[in-house]
Amino acid sequence: MNIEDYVVQPVVDVSPPKWHLGHTTWFFENFILGPKKQGYQLFNKQYCFVFNSYYETVGNRVLRTDRGNLTRPSVEEIINYRNYVDEHMLDFLNNLKNCPKELGELIELGLQHEQQHQELLFYDIKYILGHNPLFPAYQKEIPANDNITSVPSLSYLEVEQGNYQIGTDSNDFHFDNEEGKHQVYLHDFAIANRLISNGEYLEFMESGGYESFQYWLSEGWAWVSENKKKSPLYWHRIEGKWYYYTLQGLKELRLNEPVAHISLFEADAYAKWKDMRLANEFEWEIACKTNQSQVPNAANFVEKELYGPTYSVDNYQFYGDLWEWTNSAYLPYPYFKISPGAIGEYNGKFMINQMVLKGGSYVTPKDHIRPTYRNFFHPHLQWQFAGIRLAKYLD
Amino acid sequence: MNIEDYVVQPVVDVSPPKWHLGHTTWFFENFILGPKKQGYQLFNKQYCFVFNSYYETVGNRVLRTDRGNLTRPSVEEIINYRNYVDEHMLDFLNNLKNCPKELGELIELGLQHEQQHQELLFYDIKYILGHNPLFPAYQKEIPANDNITSVPSLSYLEVEQGNYQIGTDSNDFHFDNEEGKHQVYLHDFAIANRLISNGEYLEFMESGGYESFQYWLSEGWAWVSENKKKSPLYWHRIEGKWYYYTLQGLKELRLNEPVAHISLFEADAYAKWKDMRLANEFEWEIACKTNQSQVPNAANFVEKELYGPTYSVDNYQFYGDLWEWTNSAYLPYPYFKISPGAIGEYNGKFMINQMVLKGGSYVTPKDHIRPTYRNFFHPHLQWQFAGIRLAKYLD
Amino acid sequence: MNIEDYVVQPVVDVSPPKWHLGHTTWFFENFILGPKKQGYQLFNKQYCFVFNSYYETVGNRVLRTDRGNLTRPSVEEIINYRNYVDEHMLDFLNNLKNCPKELGELIELGLQHEQQHQELLFYDIKYILGHNPLFPAYQKEIPANDNITSVPSLSYLEVEQGNYQIGTDSNDFHFDNEEGKHQVYLHDFAIANRLISNGEYLEFMESGGYESFQYWLSEGWAWVSENKKKSPLYWHRIEGKWYYYTLQGLKELRLNEPVAHISLFEADAYAKWKDMRLANEFEWEIACKTNQSQVPNAANFVEKELYGPTYSVDNYQFYGDLWEWTNSAYLPYPYFKISPGAIGEYNGKFMINQMVLKGGSYVTPKDHIRPTYRNFFHPHLQWQFAGIRLAKYLD
Amino acid sequence: MNIEDYVVQPVVDVSPPKWHLGHTTWFFENFILGPKKQGYQLFNKQYCFVFNSYYETVGNRVLRTDRGNLTRPSVEEIINYRNYVDEHMLDFLNNLKNCPKELGELIELGLQHEQQHQELLFYDIKYILGHNPLFPAYQKEIPANDNITSVPSLSYLEVEQGNYQIGTDSNDFHFDNEEGKHQVYLHDFAIANRLISNGEYLEFMESGGYESFQYWLSEGWAWVSENKKKSPLYWHRIEGKWYYYTLQGLKELRLNEPVAHISLFEADAYAKWKDMRLANEFEWEIACKTNQSQVPNAANFVEKELYGPTYSVDNYQFYGDLWEWTNSAYLPYPYFKISPGAIGEYNGKFMINQMVLKGGSYVTPKDHIRPTYRNFFHPHLQWQFAGIRLAKYLD
Repeated sequence: MNIEDYVVQPVVDVSPPKWHLGHTTWFFENFILGPKKQGYQLFNKQYCFVFNSYYETVGNRVLRTDRGNLTRPSVEEIINYRNYVDEHMLDFLNNLKNCPKELGELIELGLQHEQQHQELLFYDIKYILGHNPLFPAYQKEIPANDNITSVPSLSYLEVEQGNYQIGTDSNDFHFDNEEGKHQVYLHDFAIANRLISNGEYLEFMESGGYESFQYWLSEGWAWVSENKKKSPLYWHRIEGKWYYYTLQGLKELRLNEPVAHISLFEADAYAKWKDMRLANEFEWEIACKTNQSQVPNAANFVEKELYGPTYSVDNYQFYGDLWEWTNSAYLPYPYFKISPGAIGEYNGKFMINQMVLKGGSYVTPKDHIRPTYRNFFHPHLQWQFAGIRLAKYLD
Repeated sequence: MNIEDYVVQPVVDVSPPKWHLGHTTWFFENFILGPKKQGYQLFNKQYCFVFNSYYETVGNRVLRTDRGNLTRPSVEEIINYRNYVDEHMLDFLNNLKNCPKELGELIELGLQHEQQHQELLFYDIKYILGHNPLFPAYQKEIPANDNITSVPSLSYLEVEQGNYQIGTDSNDFHFDNEEGKHQVYLHDFAIANRLISNGEYLEFMESGGYESFQYWLSEGWAWVSENKKKSPLYWHRIEGKWYYYTLQGLKELRLNEPVAHISLFEADAYAKWKDMRLANEFEWEIACKTNQSQVPNAANFVEKELYGPTYSVDNYQFYGDLWEWTNSAYLPYPYFKISPGAIGEYNGKFMINQMVLKGGSYVTPKDHIRPTYRNFFHPHLQWQFAGIRLAKYLD
Repeated sequence: MNIEDYVVQPVVDVSPPKWHLGHTTWFFENFILGPKKQGYQLFNKQYCFVFNSYYETVGNRVLRTDRGNLTRPSVEEIINYRNYVDEHMLDFLNNLKNCPKELGELIELGLQHEQQHQELLFYDIKYILGHNPLFPAYQKEIPANDNITSVPSLSYLEVEQGNYQIGTDSNDFHFDNEEGKHQVYLHDFAIANRLISNGEYLEFMESGGYESFQYWLSEGWAWVSENKKKSPLYWHRIEGKWYYYTLQGLKELRLNEPVAHISLFEADAYAKWKDMRLANEFEWEIACKTNQSQVPNAANFVEKELYGPTYSVDNYQFYGDLWEWTNSAYLPYPYFKISPGAIGEYNGKFMINQMVLKGGSYVTPKDHIRPTYRNFFHPHLQWQFAGIRLAKYLD
Repeated sequence: MNIEDYVVQPVVDVSPPKWHLGHTTWFFENFILGPKKQGYQLFNKQYCFVFNSYYETVGNRVLRTDRGNLTRPSVEEIINYRNYVDEHMLDFLNNLKNCPKELGELIELGLQHEQQHQELLFYDIKYILGHNPLFPAYQKEIPANDNITSVPSLSYLEVEQGNYQIGTDSNDFHFDNEEGKHQVYLHDFAIANRLISNGEYLEFMESGGYESFQYWLSEGWAWVSENKKKSPLYWHRIEGKWYYYTLQGLKELRLNEPVAHISLFEADAYAKWKDMRLANEFEWEIACKTNQSQVPNAANFVEKELYGPTYSVDNYQFYGDLWEWTNSAYLPYPYFKISPGAIGEYNGKFMINQMVLKGGSYVTPKDHIRPTYRNFFHPHLQWQFAGIRLAKYLD
């Protein structure tokens, strides 16, 4: 990456990479060092204004749409800021005699928050480079899926009806949106053993999927029409062949790879075209816990450095590869409470008009994921690394 | 109403009254007379284009945003159209030797569809007249709630945890979105015995509710800020006093009436301010069925011609008065299937980004409502006749 | 026309016909009866708010974009308003012992203002009916140009270089924007003897005029691209033939009629394609005064009731038929002064980003026009009745 | 400047600095080296797509609104590109046996074009840094106008009526829009001897200028209202004092400096408030030629490196300091012809909806300016370095 790549914000959902660096650092300064470390001097008091993301509690913030116009602070200044805060955090932790529970949770939250932004950095860098007409690669070649000649055969994992436990009250780290361990009644259902492939998705496209309103939600059809959508994000039709932009540059489309960069609208339309459906988040969680309650070592998370989705790595691929759209709206679990103060703005206020995704992706840190983890995006978004798993009722 | 009032479309969600008249008539012509009555001549073949609402299957349609620019066909021509179609429907029904099930269902759907548009007509006429600087009344005075001196005291109806039946497979009419009778597990909860009043809502406003981000969903807060929202729709602050537009014209605000014309964002913020929540659609349905499974005669539906919300009419007011926002996203029930053909576009394709409302309003026909009835609107909309009922968990 | 036709505002530049009726009446009430007639009672004091167009001096006004949502006052009430004001004006005039100059000028301005709105009514009614998919006719058939077999041959009227007098200081009525009689130096030029025809314009279209950027001003090309312009307003290509909407309904295109409903962008592009140019307003005025200083009786103005542009009526058609775009920006003449008070808002504040048109159209009242008359519209507008006259330099 | 500052495009009128570097280089490659130098290899054939500004003739181009999202090519690559093209140009020129007139003109145009972009770079860099909440300075302190205690007294230079020569047919370089030497008749007028100062403009503001519609053109008033304009660009009211952003950072407002960064709307409103007017471009040109036909050595152009407007430098300041708005629309001179090919797109197609400015600014190269030079901007723009000179008629 070049310095220039750290600066821009091509669409509102994408943040400049340098902003991610500053914002995650600001989290530690603003929520930990500032209030808790004696005598701590702010690195630059204006940074609070610049690097606050959406915390209304903490004061004014740069509008999300303006982030891409801020050339200062420079990348170098931000790295100095990170070093300064890192040093102070180390010093603070080394001198900590005992760590009160609340403080420990806040530090943990800062780390988890940073993991989330590490993942977002991949989304945003891919968007920035993938929308440049020169199609620069993010990294050198990785001979990932080039020679895979087939996709595992599709089968369905059955789950019996009954009351199931959802969510968590574990002592291990989890976000507030996973809390409120509660019961949900599920009807008999079955869920696919793997994600849908590019080749399978191409059949939908070639059968006229993007021109046939009957497969689409009404707002999805409007989205297709207004944006002239014809394919997943990053796909390009060049001289009669399909190509797609990957983190390794523009490549001929690999048919035997899971389809990625689709919106909920596309995932739902594909499922309807197959006369199937998406699972809801509860079905997904139970199917995952039942079939593979632990993250398998082979799972394709960011530490593998494959930087692309695969099929080869484990039996059911509930973990890693791609986030999986569910047909559940992102809403509070029973007993969900918004925490007091700025931390309370972390999750709860986003519980409207978004849909839940599960399982993590090839740019998610492995230890960031649990079966109860709830990710969420608006249904029209494509830039996150998401794919399709089918489900159906049994009767 | 004047002829002029039938023509305009002040915002995209409002349709011109004359369009409702034509569109409900077109339903019978297009789905019944055209395909089923021998020798039937279309009244005017261009009307299909003009009066199709959103049925992509049936061909081109006038964009929703253009409806308010169509001065022709005139109101008189549309009434002639209605008479023509009515006569042919009567003739058709009188000569029907036997009525196949599918045909019966289609006619029933046409009637239910017309009931829905009768209600929408009230929404739209109120919007058209209520946004005119002359504030013309829709109807003469009705001495509804003028002298009500108090609001019933607020209490909570408790429901025990367990598995409950949701939805219907009854032979009586119901929409496809209510089908898929299924079980849902509910945790112990309690639900208010009545709707929140204008006076109670005013307390929220006066305590700074519209200026305090912490009560609002993120998109709700953006909606408040961008639209400079300060109150429910139709409320006006004039020389230090609150007034509101009613179907009887501009009136001083009656504190002892249920608060109406609020968005989901406002209902949710009010509940958070009270440290409560909205019920989900399943809780609402079970609480309703448990406490009052039949529509009480006293319920305030359109036939009462009160044309305003009340408290006086029944114990728990699950029925009539105002639609009640739930915190459930409008999503398919298990086993939901989209019907083939244009009728399949009736409900399923709207199952994204909308929230469920229950119970009907003072402009709903009484026999249109059931406990399983699912209405749905986008969370920012205020022009439908909706109010607030609180709920909470027990623990 | 139906009552319904009086109500709508399909685009921001079009006003509802009933608004024109109220607004021209309001002019007399607000500027004459109110301030000058003793004991005059306003018909309805809220009408000032409703019918003020753009006079900031006079207080709040309904935003131009909201005019089409005001169903009240009704057409009937507005006609009552007109009758009331007419009676009071007559009474006022009959009792006027002497008429001070300033009052006489104000009354004259009110009449001229009403003439302008009479013309705008034609623009707006044509737009409203011409954008209805039923294409209703404004009036019965008039066998205007059906059988015209040819267009007069094109020749050029030469004018010699020199200093010329522009504008007027006559005692006859004229607008303030024509004042500031002054000298302008003109270089030798020649101007066409007639307007360009539909047939000639069609050649431009068929030669790829709308697909060739080199003929277009930069903002014109953006306008063509964004609006997918392919022809003048009201033209429709149906099954391989060109039709156009006229006040008599949808007709097959008459090739031997002057081309109308073009923007300045189109007029300018046509001229460039012909390697010619548009005249500036000074050239036009001098050529008109030189060749035909008086309005000929045969000129096609609204009193002729032809309701369409023609070629048959006079030699050079400087008067009537269609307004003629010039390549002059609408700017103040030397010594131009804005009058004090609301009347001063009549013309001067519009002197930016608009272009001058000369000569009047077939819907202009005959006695409304002079060679010095300056009309003005934004360069992208097509709904006014405007055409093309070519010019060139001599060398 | 940092690398980061080269990348962004905060509003559509601003281009990223690195784009200017690439675009001016591309001009030489595309119009000279490519077609004229034997065996020339393009540095990178995709650069044509990236660095074409608005030449439709030359093929696809990156939309102006997307320029700020292109992080590649990097600044380093663009500088390599510049070096490559520079070397090839030198080689080309050194080996040129004779230089045909047309080629010479093209090279000259490339140089003049580069001068224009040098000036635009200052506009854009000031905008980028001046809209950053940290207000970084472009350069170290220059003690320019700090201690100036007074503004030269205001007087008026009179010019007599008569026919004057406008434009040029000189053999020296000039743009095509200055050609068409022609006569214009001017009435007696007088023009101010200097620009209006910040202190004088502040009087207008303090007298309620931005709250009084009567001084404003209609579109100017809409611009003030919609954008909540209260002052020139870069002015900030902080704790009761006026500050402004300069290329040396945020400073307390210097009252004795010419007011800058105003739109035509503001210049025109100020003049109306003074009961004066702006000169038209012909008056300005004649007043300049009459009073100071040559650029004085003292004039404040970019080579002075004052980087701010002054009063101290010459008698009438027609040259340098700030561009001066005229009240002339940017339209073709008589006999103006658009050149064939891409070069023809340089000026002519912008001759609509823009206003002429004269005289150059403190960031214009000195040898770039002539009395006949016509600059042009849309009337609402403030980011160019423009000020106010008053004029009036004599009578």
